[in-house]
Amino acid sequence: MMENKDIAFIRETLTFWDKLNIQEQALILNNIISVKYRQGENIHSGENDCVGILLIKSGELRTYILSEDGREITLYRLVKGDVCILSASCILKNITFDVHIDAEHDSEVLLLNSNIFQQICNGNIYAENFSYKAVVDRFSDVMWAMQQILFMSFDRRLAIFLLDELSKNGSDSILLTHEQIAKYVGSAREVVSRMLKYFEKEGFVELSRGGVKIVDKKSLRELT
Amino acid sequence: MMENKDIAFIRETLTFWDKLNIQEQALILNNIISVKYRQGENIHSGENDCVGILLIKSGELRTYILSEDGREITLYRLVKGDVCILSASCILKNITFDVHIDAEHDSEVLLLNSNIFQQICNGNIYAENFSYKAVVDRFSDVMWAMQQILFMSFDRRLAIFLLDELSKNGSDSILLTHEQIAKYVGSAREVVSRMLKYFEKEGFVELSRGGVKIVDKKSLRELT
Repeated sequence: MMENKDIAFIRETLTFWDKLNIQEQALILNNIISVKYRQGENIHSGENDCVGILLIKSGELRTYILSEDGREITLYRLVKGDVCILSASCILKNITFDVHIDAEHDSEVLLLNSNIFQQICNGNIYAENFSYKAVVDRFSDVMWAMQQILFMSFDRRLAIFLLDELSKNGSDSILLTHEQIAKYVGSAREVVSRMLKYFEKEGFVELSRGGVKIVDKKSLRELT
Repeated sequence: MMENKDIAFIRETLTFWDKLNIQEQALILNNIISVKYRQGENIHSGENDCVGILLIKSGELRTYILSEDGREITLYRLVKGDVCILSASCILKNITFDVHIDAEHDSEVLLLNSNIFQQICNGNIYAENFSYKAVVDRFSDVMWAMQQILFMSFDRRLAIFLLDELSKNGSDSILLTHEQIAKYVGSAREVVSRMLKYFEKEGFVELSRGGVKIVDKKSLRELT
């Protein structure tokens, strides 16, 4: 029995809602379920998984690929209001790559299974369009990550990351571990720690148990 | 004045043709031109370019990204029958990255300028769908390229490992699980499995429940 709040969220998030007929809307409402994921929990793991599309009510999901030595390369993160489409990638014939998706924080989602979503997309061009558009949105994120990793020297990449997090947080402190930062910038913890120590020596940041405090934003910017 | 051959090619390549009304079809036919590119010629260069969509009649186009110091990473190549959509990326609001496109061989294309194509897409959901689908097709190509590059030394590493095992065993079969191989080469099982599948596709090895059989030692050696 779907709550009114959730129904409103679905109608707002699935922007093709008004283009669905009554039966299609009912099919979705009868097959969408609320799911909670704990921080660190794996949601989708490579090409054998196809849980469905996820409407993110709260929390954060992280999509990544695995590097050669099992390191994780983060492609993008999704937050409240976003729709995770690659967790249903089996229904898109032209998506032929593997991604992994974890809950970065405790998250609550509405999950619509892949079969139902495929049915809807096969029968409704607006739904199909929505799914393709969602993938294309992610494409730009992935290109950004790719260019960062391939072309940028690491100090610059890390500086960009720190400044991005600052503007997201609205404070001068970034409450992440070096391990988490490594996952986000596609590197290893030791590499991140070493570069942060260097940044601290140069007076750009202050390191503490809790995280990283930016003390010289200007110099960090000059790096980027 | 468009040749019948070209009109047939357009109708076949723009698979949404039958979903256009007469005016939309006329708009395309009146604004599409035949263009020849010489081998090596640049077609699209970063975000300041937006020549339009290209229907490839013959030849080959190469799409790549550029580092600051001019390194090129090829993302994918397009051939006869493909549609180049990123040369009109300015019309897709959610494509926010730069690519460059060169003619890899002498090529002949039909070029529909970006403004007209945008007009068509704005007015016709099937055209819009076509353009998104074309981008998603490229996304998979890009992910493949990205993973190749990130894993580039890995195929070499794995080939070396397999050949070493061969000489240790004195037979052409390696009786290890992918999990064991992953531990030996410092990687993850999924990464090993994926690369072995690629090796199998290329005819280097045969995979079975028991392990890995080397069938083309010479090609594996060339990898190392």
